[in-house]
Amino acid sequence: MNLLKRTFVILTFLLIGVAAAQVRIPLDIPDVSGYKVLKCDLHMHTVFSDGEVWPSVRVREAWTEGLDAIAITDHDKYHPHRDDVKVDLWRPYKIALPLAEDTGILLVPGVEITRGNLHFNALFVKDPTVFGELELLPALRKAREQDAFVFWNHPGWRGTAEWWPPIAEAYGEGLFQAIEVVNGTTCYAESYPWVGEKKLGIVADSDIHVPAPLGQPDRERPITLVFARQASVEGIREALFAKRSAAWLGEDVWGPEALVTGLWRASVKPTASEITATAGRRAGLQLRNSSAIPFEMKVLKQPEWMRVRAREVAPQRITGVFVDILKDAPKGTHEVELELEITNLHTAPHKNVTVTLPFTATVK
Amino acid sequence: MNLLKRTFVILTFLLIGVAAAQVRIPLDIPDVSGYKVLKCDLHMHTVFSDGEVWPSVRVREAWTEGLDAIAITDHDKYHPHRDDVKVDLWRPYKIALPLAEDTGILLVPGVEITRGNLHFNALFVKDPTVFGELELLPALRKAREQDAFVFWNHPGWRGTAEWWPPIAEAYGEGLFQAIEVVNGTTCYAESYPWVGEKKLGIVADSDIHVPAPLGQPDRERPITLVFARQASVEGIREALFAKRSAAWLGEDVWGPEALVTGLWRASVKPTASEITATAGRRAGLQLRNSSAIPFEMKVLKQPEWMRVRAREVAPQRITGVFVDILKDAPKGTHEVELELEITNLHTAPHKNVTVTLPFTATVK
Amino acid sequence: MNLLKRTFVILTFLLIGVAAAQVRIPLDIPDVSGYKVLKCDLHMHTVFSDGEVWPSVRVREAWTEGLDAIAITDHDKYHPHRDDVKVDLWRPYKIALPLAEDTGILLVPGVEITRGNLHFNALFVKDPTVFGELELLPALRKAREQDAFVFWNHPGWRGTAEWWPPIAEAYGEGLFQAIEVVNGTTCYAESYPWVGEKKLGIVADSDIHVPAPLGQPDRERPITLVFARQASVEGIREALFAKRSAAWLGEDVWGPEALVTGLWRASVKPTASEITATAGRRAGLQLRNSSAIPFEMKVLKQPEWMRVRAREVAPQRITGVFVDILKDAPKGTHEVELELEITNLHTAPHKNVTVTLPFTATVK
Amino acid sequence: MNLLKRTFVILTFLLIGVAAAQVRIPLDIPDVSGYKVLKCDLHMHTVFSDGEVWPSVRVREAWTEGLDAIAITDHDKYHPHRDDVKVDLWRPYKIALPLAEDTGILLVPGVEITRGNLHFNALFVKDPTVFGELELLPALRKAREQDAFVFWNHPGWRGTAEWWPPIAEAYGEGLFQAIEVVNGTTCYAESYPWVGEKKLGIVADSDIHVPAPLGQPDRERPITLVFARQASVEGIREALFAKRSAAWLGEDVWGPEALVTGLWRASVKPTASEITATAGRRAGLQLRNSSAIPFEMKVLKQPEWMRVRAREVAPQRITGVFVDILKDAPKGTHEVELELEITNLHTAPHKNVTVTLPFTATVK
Repeated sequence: MNLLKRTFVILTFLLIGVAAAQVRIPLDIPDVSGYKVLKCDLHMHTVFSDGEVWPSVRVREAWTEGLDAIAITDHDKYHPHRDDVKVDLWRPYKIALPLAEDTGILLVPGVEITRGNLHFNALFVKDPTVFGELELLPALRKAREQDAFVFWNHPGWRGTAEWWPPIAEAYGEGLFQAIEVVNGTTCYAESYPWVGEKKLGIVADSDIHVPAPLGQPDRERPITLVFARQASVEGIREALFAKRSAAWLGEDVWGPEALVTGLWRASVKPTASEITATAGRRAGLQLRNSSAIPFEMKVLKQPEWMRVRAREVAPQRITGVFVDILKDAPKGTHEVELELEITNLHTAPHKNVTVTLPFTATVK
Repeated sequence: MNLLKRTFVILTFLLIGVAAAQVRIPLDIPDVSGYKVLKCDLHMHTVFSDGEVWPSVRVREAWTEGLDAIAITDHDKYHPHRDDVKVDLWRPYKIALPLAEDTGILLVPGVEITRGNLHFNALFVKDPTVFGELELLPALRKAREQDAFVFWNHPGWRGTAEWWPPIAEAYGEGLFQAIEVVNGTTCYAESYPWVGEKKLGIVADSDIHVPAPLGQPDRERPITLVFARQASVEGIREALFAKRSAAWLGEDVWGPEALVTGLWRASVKPTASEITATAGRRAGLQLRNSSAIPFEMKVLKQPEWMRVRAREVAPQRITGVFVDILKDAPKGTHEVELELEITNLHTAPHKNVTVTLPFTATVK
Repeated sequence: MNLLKRTFVILTFLLIGVAAAQVRIPLDIPDVSGYKVLKCDLHMHTVFSDGEVWPSVRVREAWTEGLDAIAITDHDKYHPHRDDVKVDLWRPYKIALPLAEDTGILLVPGVEITRGNLHFNALFVKDPTVFGELELLPALRKAREQDAFVFWNHPGWRGTAEWWPPIAEAYGEGLFQAIEVVNGTTCYAESYPWVGEKKLGIVADSDIHVPAPLGQPDRERPITLVFARQASVEGIREALFAKRSAAWLGEDVWGPEALVTGLWRASVKPTASEITATAGRRAGLQLRNSSAIPFEMKVLKQPEWMRVRAREVAPQRITGVFVDILKDAPKGTHEVELELEITNLHTAPHKNVTVTLPFTATVK
Repeated sequence: MNLLKRTFVILTFLLIGVAAAQVRIPLDIPDVSGYKVLKCDLHMHTVFSDGEVWPSVRVREAWTEGLDAIAITDHDKYHPHRDDVKVDLWRPYKIALPLAEDTGILLVPGVEITRGNLHFNALFVKDPTVFGELELLPALRKAREQDAFVFWNHPGWRGTAEWWPPIAEAYGEGLFQAIEVVNGTTCYAESYPWVGEKKLGIVADSDIHVPAPLGQPDRERPITLVFARQASVEGIREALFAKRSAAWLGEDVWGPEALVTGLWRASVKPTASEITATAGRRAGLQLRNSSAIPFEMKVLKQPEWMRVRAREVAPQRITGVFVDILKDAPKGTHEVELELEITNLHTAPHKNVTVTLPFTATVK
């Protein structure tokens, strides 16, 4: 019968690319200092090791969430599904690649070198299948042979991290270039000082195994911000080796001073460069934040006749900052330069971005 | 080294049962006519046919979404992942079962008999692996041998459904007992009349392949309501064969008259049985809907001195219904009985539930 | 005692400008054909007639909701609060003006001439207090003397609107220039044809009396889009008299063809001008909508080897539009020009915007 | 003309009782120890002092938000709107009362005795108009003559609160019975110890002036929980004088030990009294929280073969609590009694509710 003989041609249409959501949140971040700021998740799992989704799911989630790039990094040595799923570390990449190309998501090849408590992600690998049979240090050396970019995952996940002997050894040989200070929703604060001290890069990734909880309000999504010359896999590679990356989780960003300062400067502008106020009354300064990153302002220095009520400058919104003009404020036009600390942009342990915010205030 | 030799014992803790969300939405529906109303999804897919998730994901989604029971029904004959995933239709059930038992989700064994445009789900199968090599009618007869409950999936998915010869043949032999009038977010309205005419049951299922879009606002989640004697797999079986099921999608429910009328009666009660009003003014009747199902009221009959502004009675909320008392309303206490049509509860094509709503109105 | 004598200086800070929300939703709409598209609500009430809020509330709501301009238009002849609130139609404007200036909201003086079922808003009035004692036509003539812009409010609010004799008379004398086809969440469709036939302008306003339901999901907020030369009260005046306005409610916009077509053109751009596809597979075209207005696409004309799945192009999002390439599509590079109808942008009764969408498709 | 002479009879229908939302969130809290737990806001403002809404708005907000009772407490001595609004402290109560009766909201008469930095709310006053001309202590004595219930508002609003001389004096004469430790979203922690030390009651109120930010996600709404014998104004009065009240803001509740412990007991029940687990694996204990209050669990004591992962027990949800059974757990059936601290239910400074949670665990 005709209908029994119908082919699955149309099924193909349905199955390929059917995203739960066909709508992508732009997650805008303006260029900073001439670099494109790429939003990346460089640590994810699928059914090909201990994850629970087909590789295409990660591409679609990335597209929906506004990411630019992902690395699917299944374990080289832990395959609880091997009775059902053939072990082949090339498969996640090969399955995901066509959909990534179709949707414009950059797909970085990768693998998680998994040895006891010490896990490392190796990205841009030329062959992910060769690590599984090696011990830790040999595996990391093999990664270097493949010109991989390697970072130390979730350092404190099994107890407060220390600069353990194998870590020191791997570092001494230059076998890793960054630390995943943020993994999932955890910040391994004890490892943050090593970023500066040891001149390492910093990344933030989800390490997600289950489907992504899209649509959950208040969700803190870890993202590595990569300040790249171009939006390409090679662009990401170049930027990571140059240590032009920052970690972003919810309301916090950790990264190199020049770049995270640049995030504030590129994102936040007053809607008008001057305000008019009456002595003894409250005026408003409207700041437009055109990025997806929130900023927490704290006022370090202001004229003594003004009191600025610092607050969060919400992402993708215009925030009204109250500026109370004291009763005895001098009348006339004044050039004001507030000194601000942006307390959620961290440049080193206990050190945040400081900027100035200039505007003109006319007091009547 | 000690840390290199650490086992994955603790990993086991992390991996088993890690739900993206540990919080379950109760999705309350009160008992109706002595039956427990079980919320079921009887049509889902995993990587074991053309889905994109590990079977455990379906159990967790069901737990999060407030369902009571699911059937994972992978295709018996369509396995696009077979190069990576071994074809074995027992695996989805066996992988999901421990987590289902742990979380209290009832897991119904099932398989989708997939032949061209005609697909049937067979539930409560004793062996899902034997159907794939059979033609349609032989496969359905094999399902009957296994005492399976069988329903015709998404009848109009490839063009308006008709009571095609193979369908007529299968029906003539009693090889299926229900129609999946609602599949995903589509209602195949042309098939709804056959439910009454042919004395078939009705189901509503997701047929989901990708991860569930949990947290999407305005999400219409298809659910089969099963009016069971007990909350167990056998209870579902008995109820389905007795045709005590209804289809629910968003704001619509389709089912047997007595049972869907019972949904309204069990769910909606006035917060007070009497209202006091002033002639010429508006009074309020507060209706509490203690179920997850919305109800759309339309007033068929009311006293001529009253005008009730019918509206949606929102789920899990108290809704204020405006009752306008006309200026010339007779003073004193009156027993009122409104005749209502609940326009989202369908009992047959073009036929909805009708009920009365009694209360006392004192007009001052 | 010192603390008993403390002044209310600081209270002043607290009370003036305390917005429930200090965050403003930008509600972006790009410039169209060189005009700034101002978002206005030209019909609102306060305690100074039959509303329930102090005038400052309307300014703050407007700021929070992303509006550019409002007119507070209390009734000239209906003052149910007169036992408590002194009747003076200048007060709403005078009370609101300082906060409007502080927050950058343009405040248009106005009043609602309220006579039985026929209500008219008069904007840019020079003295709102003189209308109350006049009959309808004399009041409208007085408005014209004041060079007011006048529109007929909620035409069908008391039963289907007709071009009643007083309306015809007022129109004959040129006493009103627009119709409020959209009032609150109601579109008075019967009045829409008169906009074209009688060469009138069109507006959409809230007519809100209670506090605005900020934060309600799915809220349809009526807005008059004014295509102005400059963002000022005079700019709004000039644009309204030139009939450069459109009505926007939820998913629908009604306005002059050139301007609403311009809304689509200015707002929606493909993220890339070319797509690559494989014959027999699905490709994706990503459209970025940088405005707050949604657009509903319907495909009128496309190459016969392509099937575009038209859908809603969500506001402030990138939407993936599926482009199915049929199996027998000719290989190579093709210049495609889709003909689209944007079914939510209405230019006349039963007439919507039509546009072309060009891109390059390379079929492999 | 007929249509010009139409009366406003129907307008009356529209204006009276038009709630922005006709849907009420139940905000369920089960009875505790035989008391009804009433949700009250006992500190609000309208245009009749320095607020910005008509009194009816407060009734509607209360209905929408699920409250049981409110007190509108305009200032006796601060009337910035007096040029427009006649000063009469009876008006807020009289205007709000009919709508309160219609909707079932209990309306408590009240006034805010406002003297410099020291403000007190007097509830159940017999005449709110007589306080304005008195000094603080005479005004409080007048309140006592009227059998009012009086509480000290926002003690630390102008700088850290101290037991200032006028407070000590008023307390010495028994002129106030409670402290408003929570006002708006601020908890005046320095005043909390006086609740226990001085044997005072505790309340939490909004002190709201602008329209309520209904619909704001993450909104922390301050509420006084009153444990009353009956749901009536007199029931509230009796309970307040008996000090049966607690303060609730977001995730914290402060109140008498017996009553807040009772909140947990009445609200949280396991869905099953026994769990089955495998040694070395994770089991789940599902707790149903049938109230609108969240609870934060911390485990004080558990069997050494078990590790319970304490977490928030979300309101109106079923929460899965992970129970890790260690590898060497003794097999068989065990009666377990966890000792928990509910860290968000505070009974005194630095002291929280402790409870036991019994269940049966069968280890396989």
